[in-house]
Amino acid sequence: MQIALLGGTGDIGEGLALRFACDTDHDVLIGSRDASRAESNAREYGVELDKRGVEADVTGHDNADAAAAADVAVLAVPAYHLADTVAAIEGGLDDDTVLVTPAVGMKRDEDGFHYNRPGAGSVTAIAAEAAPEDVPVVGAYHNLPAARLADLDADLDVDTAIVGDDGDAVDTVTRLSEEIEGLRAVDAGPLSNAAEIEAITPLLINVAKNNDGMHDLGVRFE
Amino acid sequence: MQIALLGGTGDIGEGLALRFACDTDHDVLIGSRDASRAESNAREYGVELDKRGVEADVTGHDNADAAAAADVAVLAVPAYHLADTVAAIEGGLDDDTVLVTPAVGMKRDEDGFHYNRPGAGSVTAIAAEAAPEDVPVVGAYHNLPAARLADLDADLDVDTAIVGDDGDAVDTVTRLSEEIEGLRAVDAGPLSNAAEIEAITPLLINVAKNNDGMHDLGVRFE
Repeated sequence: MQIALLGGTGDIGEGLALRFACDTDHDVLIGSRDASRAESNAREYGVELDKRGVEADVTGHDNADAAAAADVAVLAVPAYHLADTVAAIEGGLDDDTVLVTPAVGMKRDEDGFHYNRPGAGSVTAIAAEAAPEDVPVVGAYHNLPAARLADLDADLDVDTAIVGDDGDAVDTVTRLSEEIEGLRAVDAGPLSNAAEIEAITPLLINVAKNNDGMHDLGVRFE
Repeated sequence: MQIALLGGTGDIGEGLALRFACDTDHDVLIGSRDASRAESNAREYGVELDKRGVEADVTGHDNADAAAAADVAVLAVPAYHLADTVAAIEGGLDDDTVLVTPAVGMKRDEDGFHYNRPGAGSVTAIAAEAAPEDVPVVGAYHNLPAARLADLDADLDVDTAIVGDDGDAVDTVTRLSEEIEGLRAVDAGPLSNAAEIEAITPLLINVAKNNDGMHDLGVRFE
């Protein structure tokens, strides 16, 4: 399978790229608005993987080329870049490509971070609205600890709640996610259940800020 | 310490009453709008504890008497009974009583359960607004698995995120919570951070509904 990490040079994109490359046999395509930056990051990830004796196929591309080649494309970009990223890649998308959105909207005040629920209901819903109608959109990876994800020496041991309206697409992302060691994918139902997942991310930041010894947190449903 | 479970005849109230009675040396006061129902439940909990060789002081009262005697009073009532429960007990409250609110507002549609965020910002904020100004309010126990909590044979192994604007009250509830075996209390900051905690409860229901083998879920921040 071809997995594209669009925005694969940012923190969650980097971690997913390294984990998919290390733990699965799929090809990993790093996407960026700037292809040369994606190529440079892909080389860095290759060196990191090579150190561990992992021979992986990680290549860099501009976002449109990465998405066009992908079976699963993860929109690992900030919420405010979702719509323009989808616009940049939609020419290469079809109903064989699953779009995955991990973005969350937050605001910050003196008390901490808060979920900034958009009018569409969730950031996941914004991605679904931006995508061409025949392209299935799945929400996943909203609450992953970015630094731990990118540290291949660290045990992940977290859950990711997955939402989507297309059962086949949800199955694909669930199976793919569970190939990452220490990541458990749980089904949270249709896309309209995304807001409660996204809201966990600011809470994780607040908990990390207020408790000694807790940082870079994920969540487990137990 | 005197711990009152107002609404201690409902599911989360029953579980907290049994766990506090079993795992701590504090006195447990069951409160209800109907004192005789509270007394009857207190006797039942006593029998349950006695079977395990636990000698605990669990007594039944009407909500006002339980709250007046309490150092910590947990408002274990549905969100729509919060305001009238606080009104019924406020004569006996003072700045030595910590009010704890675990209530969450949810709505349900064909897709699942959703967080129903009230205009006040959170249900926790509604409790704080209803309480007399000098009575400290702490949000806690929003995401506990009710059946597992009430089953003293079950390992709890979950977190509870705690919010509050009064540091001493937060410390009291944190220490008290950690006396329950398998319950870890984490500080999530001021009361204004409550909504993201409350929103986890409908998500836990959605995850339980959509995944075989997962039910009566709690959460861990890891």
